[in-house]
Amino acid sequence: MNYPVIETLLNHRSIREFTDQALTEAQVRLLVQCAQAASTSSFTQSYSIIGIDDPEIKKQLRPIAYNAPYVEHNGYFFVFVADQYRNRCIGKKMGVATDTLDTTQRLLVALGDAAFAAQNMAVAAESMGLGICYIGSIQNAIDRTAEILNLPEHTFPIFGMAVGYPAQNPEKKPRLPFDVIFHKNHYQHQIPAEKLSAYDQEVAHYYQTRQGNNRDETWTEEIARGLKAPARMQLKPFLDHQQLGKR
Amino acid sequence: MNYPVIETLLNHRSIREFTDQALTEAQVRLLVQCAQAASTSSFTQSYSIIGIDDPEIKKQLRPIAYNAPYVEHNGYFFVFVADQYRNRCIGKKMGVATDTLDTTQRLLVALGDAAFAAQNMAVAAESMGLGICYIGSIQNAIDRTAEILNLPEHTFPIFGMAVGYPAQNPEKKPRLPFDVIFHKNHYQHQIPAEKLSAYDQEVAHYYQTRQGNNRDETWTEEIARGLKAPARMQLKPFLDHQQLGKR
Repeated sequence: MNYPVIETLLNHRSIREFTDQALTEAQVRLLVQCAQAASTSSFTQSYSIIGIDDPEIKKQLRPIAYNAPYVEHNGYFFVFVADQYRNRCIGKKMGVATDTLDTTQRLLVALGDAAFAAQNMAVAAESMGLGICYIGSIQNAIDRTAEILNLPEHTFPIFGMAVGYPAQNPEKKPRLPFDVIFHKNHYQHQIPAEKLSAYDQEVAHYYQTRQGNNRDETWTEEIARGLKAPARMQLKPFLDHQQLGKR
Repeated sequence: MNYPVIETLLNHRSIREFTDQALTEAQVRLLVQCAQAASTSSFTQSYSIIGIDDPEIKKQLRPIAYNAPYVEHNGYFFVFVADQYRNRCIGKKMGVATDTLDTTQRLLVALGDAAFAAQNMAVAAESMGLGICYIGSIQNAIDRTAEILNLPEHTFPIFGMAVGYPAQNPEKKPRLPFDVIFHKNHYQHQIPAEKLSAYDQEVAHYYQTRQGNNRDETWTEEIARGLKAPARMQLKPFLDHQQLGKR
């Protein structure tokens, strides 16, 4: 067994404060190479990676993403894009109809391909002593994100990833108990109540005792709080506009 | 730098033939633990993993997935599920409204969480000497898959993953050139034609010379062929029925 891999995976925590040190071009190329090595549905490779080192563009993205400082200050910033535009270009060049690109299947495949690639990059980065943080909040103003990145039709920016040398060493966040996330042979409709209750105490303790941003909240309280308002309601009209997932 | 991780990532190839050796429960637990260590949007952990060792269930899933033998014959079979049902149960228990679970944002978050977890599992498995193959084709008859797995509303089975000890050692499939997948600071609307053309030759050579299932086709020809018919047109109505991504 190749323990360094397991150790890298289990040691993950998101990093939200980086040193000023920029990634080298060789590091960026290796990260992208590792991302590309992931599985891709039907070999379509339906995603793109935008690599951002221009401080001006990072500064433009930051206010979209809750004004998080680490969107602007990091070693490098990547945006993962579900991409059927490349396939459309190829279809047009090859003289075949491309109207099948607007299906839900095509959207899901592109989302999956991009996410597999991104997670490979995250693992590679952490193995190189770098830290990462996914930035889903670039979708908070998706039209503006698409405008900044000059995205064409048939593309969809799913998340950013801030990468860099960690300037913090946060605690690991406890995950749900095995029996809550895992279902044997069939989906178990009943959440194991005792396991969830023990986990609530574990998360409450984590929030009370971690280095900063302390609060009193269990995991189920946090989930319930998140249910109050619908979020990012411009995503569906944006996908429609991009000709993705229409049918 | 932690080379074993990079090596594991770059050495990926999908495995479609496994020995009869089943995974142990300890292996399954370690794989799930590694999957769970991945990032999760807003700490919601909006996915479930169904672990299948019942030969009867594997046999039922196989005809849905192009009758692929490795869906039935493997060391273990996992299904990754985008899951907002758990959040609904918690919301109900906590006495808050749960109607915000039907948004596109909630669907995308669950798809991402599940994909990050799955890719971590894939990497962990390969580091343990196991092979994996994603099985997107469990969506070919999504109603039937949901029925077999007893899935409730607010869940969506995204893909399976066959895991086991490899009984084959296939060639690595070449990936798109860096300059085709990677865009510097902004999306580049023009595909670098020479790079793509060289890649077409590389893929054609791969298909001509690999161990089995040889054919004459470039990558752009394969992409164009895939554009001909819309696929899995029941996905959108199924998502609607599951109360996912409705608005």
